[in-house]
Amino acid sequence: MALNEKTHLLESGRTTYNGSSSQSDVGYGNSLQVEHNENVAANDVRMRRTTWDRSPKSPEEVQQMGTMKLLSSKFESLDYDIVENSLYFKEQKQVGSKTSMIRRIQTARWFVMLLIGVITACIAAFIDVMIDKLAGAKYALVSKYIDHDLESTSILIPFLLWLAVDVGFVSIAAILVTFVEPVAAGSGIPQIKCYLNGVKIPHVVRIKTLFTKVIGVIFGMSGGLAIGKEGPMIHSGAVVAAGISQGRSTSFKFDCKLFQYFRSDHEKRDFVSGGAAAGVSAAFGAPVGGVLFSLEEGASFWNQSLTWRIFFASMVSTFTLNVLLSYYHNDPWSLSSPGLVNFGQFEGKDYYGYEIPIFIAMAVIGGLLGALFNTVNYRLSVFRIKYLYKRWMHLVEAMLVASVTATLAFLAIYNIQDCRSLPQEEVKYPLQMFCADGEYSATASLFFSTPEASIKNLFHDPPDAYSVKTLLVFFIVYFLLSCWTYGLNIPSGLFIPCILTGAAWGRLFGILINTVLPDAQLSDPGKYALIGAAAHLGGVLRMTISLTVILIEATGNITYGLPLMLVLVFAKWIGDIFNEGLYDIHIQLQSVPILPWEPPQLTANIHAREVMNQPVVTLNTIENVGRIIDVLSCKESKHNGFPVVDPHDQNGSTFGTFRGLILRDQLLIILKHKAYSTFPLSDASDHKLRTKDFQNSYPRFPDISTLNITHLEQQSSVDLRPFMNQAPYSVSEDASLPRIFRLFRAVGLRHLVVVNDCNEVVGIVTRKDLARFRVSGHGVGLEQLFIST
Amino acid sequence: MALNEKTHLLESGRTTYNGSSSQSDVGYGNSLQVEHNENVAANDVRMRRTTWDRSPKSPEEVQQMGTMKLLSSKFESLDYDIVENSLYFKEQKQVGSKTSMIRRIQTARWFVMLLIGVITACIAAFIDVMIDKLAGAKYALVSKYIDHDLESTSILIPFLLWLAVDVGFVSIAAILVTFVEPVAAGSGIPQIKCYLNGVKIPHVVRIKTLFTKVIGVIFGMSGGLAIGKEGPMIHSGAVVAAGISQGRSTSFKFDCKLFQYFRSDHEKRDFVSGGAAAGVSAAFGAPVGGVLFSLEEGASFWNQSLTWRIFFASMVSTFTLNVLLSYYHNDPWSLSSPGLVNFGQFEGKDYYGYEIPIFIAMAVIGGLLGALFNTVNYRLSVFRIKYLYKRWMHLVEAMLVASVTATLAFLAIYNIQDCRSLPQEEVKYPLQMFCADGEYSATASLFFSTPEASIKNLFHDPPDAYSVKTLLVFFIVYFLLSCWTYGLNIPSGLFIPCILTGAAWGRLFGILINTVLPDAQLSDPGKYALIGAAAHLGGVLRMTISLTVILIEATGNITYGLPLMLVLVFAKWIGDIFNEGLYDIHIQLQSVPILPWEPPQLTANIHAREVMNQPVVTLNTIENVGRIIDVLSCKESKHNGFPVVDPHDQNGSTFGTFRGLILRDQLLIILKHKAYSTFPLSDASDHKLRTKDFQNSYPRFPDISTLNITHLEQQSSVDLRPFMNQAPYSVSEDASLPRIFRLFRAVGLRHLVVVNDCNEVVGIVTRKDLARFRVSGHGVGLEQLFIST
Repeated sequence: MALNEKTHLLESGRTTYNGSSSQSDVGYGNSLQVEHNENVAANDVRMRRTTWDRSPKSPEEVQQMGTMKLLSSKFESLDYDIVENSLYFKEQKQVGSKTSMIRRIQTARWFVMLLIGVITACIAAFIDVMIDKLAGAKYALVSKYIDHDLESTSILIPFLLWLAVDVGFVSIAAILVTFVEPVAAGSGIPQIKCYLNGVKIPHVVRIKTLFTKVIGVIFGMSGGLAIGKEGPMIHSGAVVAAGISQGRSTSFKFDCKLFQYFRSDHEKRDFVSGGAAAGVSAAFGAPVGGVLFSLEEGASFWNQSLTWRIFFASMVSTFTLNVLLSYYHNDPWSLSSPGLVNFGQFEGKDYYGYEIPIFIAMAVIGGLLGALFNTVNYRLSVFRIKYLYKRWMHLVEAMLVASVTATLAFLAIYNIQDCRSLPQEEVKYPLQMFCADGEYSATASLFFSTPEASIKNLFHDPPDAYSVKTLLVFFIVYFLLSCWTYGLNIPSGLFIPCILTGAAWGRLFGILINTVLPDAQLSDPGKYALIGAAAHLGGVLRMTISLTVILIEATGNITYGLPLMLVLVFAKWIGDIFNEGLYDIHIQLQSVPILPWEPPQLTANIHAREVMNQPVVTLNTIENVGRIIDVLSCKESKHNGFPVVDPHDQNGSTFGTFRGLILRDQLLIILKHKAYSTFPLSDASDHKLRTKDFQNSYPRFPDISTLNITHLEQQSSVDLRPFMNQAPYSVSEDASLPRIFRLFRAVGLRHLVVVNDCNEVVGIVTRKDLARFRVSGHGVGLEQLFIST
Repeated sequence: MALNEKTHLLESGRTTYNGSSSQSDVGYGNSLQVEHNENVAANDVRMRRTTWDRSPKSPEEVQQMGTMKLLSSKFESLDYDIVENSLYFKEQKQVGSKTSMIRRIQTARWFVMLLIGVITACIAAFIDVMIDKLAGAKYALVSKYIDHDLESTSILIPFLLWLAVDVGFVSIAAILVTFVEPVAAGSGIPQIKCYLNGVKIPHVVRIKTLFTKVIGVIFGMSGGLAIGKEGPMIHSGAVVAAGISQGRSTSFKFDCKLFQYFRSDHEKRDFVSGGAAAGVSAAFGAPVGGVLFSLEEGASFWNQSLTWRIFFASMVSTFTLNVLLSYYHNDPWSLSSPGLVNFGQFEGKDYYGYEIPIFIAMAVIGGLLGALFNTVNYRLSVFRIKYLYKRWMHLVEAMLVASVTATLAFLAIYNIQDCRSLPQEEVKYPLQMFCADGEYSATASLFFSTPEASIKNLFHDPPDAYSVKTLLVFFIVYFLLSCWTYGLNIPSGLFIPCILTGAAWGRLFGILINTVLPDAQLSDPGKYALIGAAAHLGGVLRMTISLTVILIEATGNITYGLPLMLVLVFAKWIGDIFNEGLYDIHIQLQSVPILPWEPPQLTANIHAREVMNQPVVTLNTIENVGRIIDVLSCKESKHNGFPVVDPHDQNGSTFGTFRGLILRDQLLIILKHKAYSTFPLSDASDHKLRTKDFQNSYPRFPDISTLNITHLEQQSSVDLRPFMNQAPYSVSEDASLPRIFRLFRAVGLRHLVVVNDCNEVVGIVTRKDLARFRVSGHGVGLEQLFIST
């Protein structure tokens, strides 16, 4: 078969992989056989701190990590499909007669979105103000020594002072992340992408994570690292949404008893979409971009009323932030700060049609630089996973990066004397350094300002504001630093460093063009800085429609839409030749079974029977309690969904006729409430379970080992029919992979039962079975990943 | 049952409705029994000119029309689901080994989108320039008589001249639409909404329609009607897309043999999405709004690469139009005309937080006015359908409206002497009228300018530019005229009249507020004009996220995002209390089975067995040719999809086991190519049919009556298995309506087979069966529509 020839089969030492061995979310078939040694326990504690899935890792598993051809079966999926069982139908019938309840729930949804928008904006404003204060304090402290006493005292004192402050600040952030909540590291966008895609990442939307993220990013930024606060805002928005929508906090053991209706994966994910959008909106002043981000990452199907609510949260978020920051800047209601980062006005900076080829050339450069960035960062990340997995190592590395950053900046300022006269408008942190009175050091302002201010400078300062040498050094230093920094145990956005690096080389490119073609009237290098920023961002992130819209909104000029879009597309195309976007690399390094937007090409000839897991563990419509306990307790294969079948004694068939689907969580609640009859195989169980019983246990269902079921009870039986999803989606074993894929993604499934011509259960398809097939490097091949247990 | 109590059962005179009588797209069950009389033939010709479905209508059917509780079974659906049969799999296998082909098709898709963008923009520019020229010529002609000879000659001469020109222009447009292509009437947005929703509207994407639309809108606008050219642009873009993507024109009998791969409903609809987006983009300079419009109306599932291409077409369209119009205005590369309509710069016009309640009050007014507008227009439309169905009547009505429009404008100008001194900047068409030298009549400029220019004036003219009387008269006159005009046999956009009406009362409101609260520093009524425009537009159209983004993009100021959004949401909420959006009203008047975004509420207790059609006409896997011909020729029930079953002789079951699905079009091609064996019931048919044979016949498949099949051939049999879709989606008869609905919309189905526990075909669900259930008036009830044959 053509396909198999294309499939790269990866054989690995002692480990037995089993490609099609996961039912439910978690591996069905054989478990990974590893030799345990004494170090396992010690390793456990250490390793669970560096990966997203938080489960103990053996040394062998550690060795496996760092390959991109692996899917971890430790990640579970969200249950986005609504369980339509008898209880649900009964409840719906009651709701039908109470239209006021429908209205109340609708109103509550809008109200929650309002809260999400407001609180996300408050957090954004808090971060912005705190960084402003801390950075201001640092500047005041250091500049006192630099400017005035430069000739009288040694340069060493301000340097050491600066170094100490930076390392101190960064240590606070690193300690928090390492010891309080490791999942708060990085930008959070990969994690939120996974969550919206339908994968549960443990702790990702906990309030502790929010706390760590916010404090961490404030100190990281103030410590002068090459990071941004925009990515973390998206994560923060998502956590706010998850928290508020549930009306309670498990961390704080607090339950306000509101919004109980929203306690399901389905509702929670909808709110998290809104929170992520509100975060984008607050970060970039880009409400439409925020909506598109959520749709792009999370959209199953275009849900009109949900999209409205997401849009509302976005709008409220940017508006609230605007009001708060306007107030902070002593100009209430000027409403000039829609987002944390602002590219300033590009009005009047027109481009000409014949510049478009130049822009595309820049996109090619951006794609190449981005691919380089990603390769270097990938290797660094693998190195970190393999060797730097102890907590103290994370801490030391963060401190090292902080020192190097401070040292390099200081060296650059010290060595490049790029003096400019102070302009009329304020320069926020003017450093005189070795310049004459009335002048300031351009190099210093670039290195010392907050990244956001530097971006605005690079975009809008007059053509001669920076020398070629300053820009070149800044570009190289910032490229290397940002590459090293991303992946540290620090909350760190990637947008701003990329924009800054790109703006630096873009401006450089603009100066170059002006030198080569002095007559072309392309006088403004700020325009090229913008294009360079887009190209670099596109090359590193390979993000997409939402990124384009975010950039257009941040630029505030619709005429730049076409060039920005072209640049992002070309940068993506060039970069994709070499590797994937940085977020995707980090997601794959964590072996998350994420589903792409479309079925991989060349899979039309792969059919359900080749994709599915079999044999399937099924339950009978009236099942023995002991058997259910056995199935749920099975250590090797922790399944989350079980097809319910009619017993298959009639035709001598080996399979049972498909009747419904029941989830592990439901079974646990049934057992907990003992909704079974003590007479074996009687279906007269007049249980009193209600939907609320299932909602109240969400999202922490009891473990099977904590349930206390007597031996006598184990003899009794339970009628699963009232609880099972009566008509879940199923496909024929002839269905092609793209067809299964489209169904799976479009309606947000967790389990898809495969039936034969007689409607008997022959297999089950889960997320990992589909995520296994991936387009290989150059866009047209196909490769298969392996599923670890 | 709670549901049935809520259902309004509509019983109608002699007509027997059958709620669940449509398999495939077209009614299964009993046909409507009507008495035919002699007038039927005469009515046929007339009626087919006024409805979208173009089929002959009996007088009884005419009587039925004009109710909103009917679905016509004459409309067919698009086949968006890919037919995955053996031929397809074989072809995919070949493609798999030729990666160059995948690349070529991908490149062709981008290239087609480029062409769509460029050509749509060219058409937009052509319309704009032609209207400019014609309106300019009219102005030159009339103003010569008005300004200079006002005192020497009678006022009658310029008035009659004006009247004659307007009526002449409008007649040209009305004649074209009435006699050449009636579907070109109106804005075209309802038709495109239906097409993107998956309903075939005959002739809607033909080149003849485009021609009629373009010429019609030019003459309609130049004739001074209260219409816009923006809606027609969206339709034009869609036609351009459909034409180019097919690489041929059936109207012109021209086939360039390119893009054969794109000859399927699936591919064509994707391109039409791009065309509609390019149209929005050209009309409003709103590329992101265009993308959202297409997604909102058409999106099944978020398809990432398609969305990119749609975005690309949008961007190219706005860019090309910008270049063309900049060139026309003698300022190449100023790139200041991204769209046909431009709201001008709102920089510097800030709003204050405490104005938001005022804006919401305006939204309430807008919602009420919009509801009034819709009710009046609805009654007018029903009147037109019932009584004004002859061609000459359409023509006369259009001419009447043109005369009344001209007369009212003239009377207003004549009676209201609102003289203003000529400002420094040019006023494009200054009319002195009875004013002193150096002054011009504000009333005249409002009535005489193109609507686009008037909008800009209302938004940006200084606070005292218009008297209260001028605004009030203009608002009332324009409200009535635009309401009367929409629905004429004229291509006519609705956006601009709504914006203009709203801007007029918004400005009035602003003046009022300033009088009541003189100290509140809300000095600029232009701001209120913008909010009024949004409120009115929201009240009439009830459009949605894309409308918000379009307005934000046209305003060019992101800070107005929140108020615009709030106003649109509130206007929609208020308006929805009374009736639906105008586009939806017109769609429902045409009885189109359009599917809403989400399943109607309160339907969770309705199950597949209550929704589906039964009995189903099925075909056996190896079927007799004679039986196929019988089934296809059946006049009463023209089905489009047939479940293929195993013969059901084994268990004595009345149903056959479900094996696949085959479409009418496929059967016709099989018969046409005689892909059957002459030996009865032999499956050894070594047919040579290929996918290309099916593609080449698209979209005009032969009629069954034109196929010449001998009596002997009718004895032979055909093996349907290689041609049928092997694993189409199916649901259990227990599946709930929302579950069926989500599947249906998310993957774009035309037929969904319902099976029982033994996988036997018991029914089939089509678009109309789902469209039947609709949320009733107040948002929480449920009503059922009736399906006519």
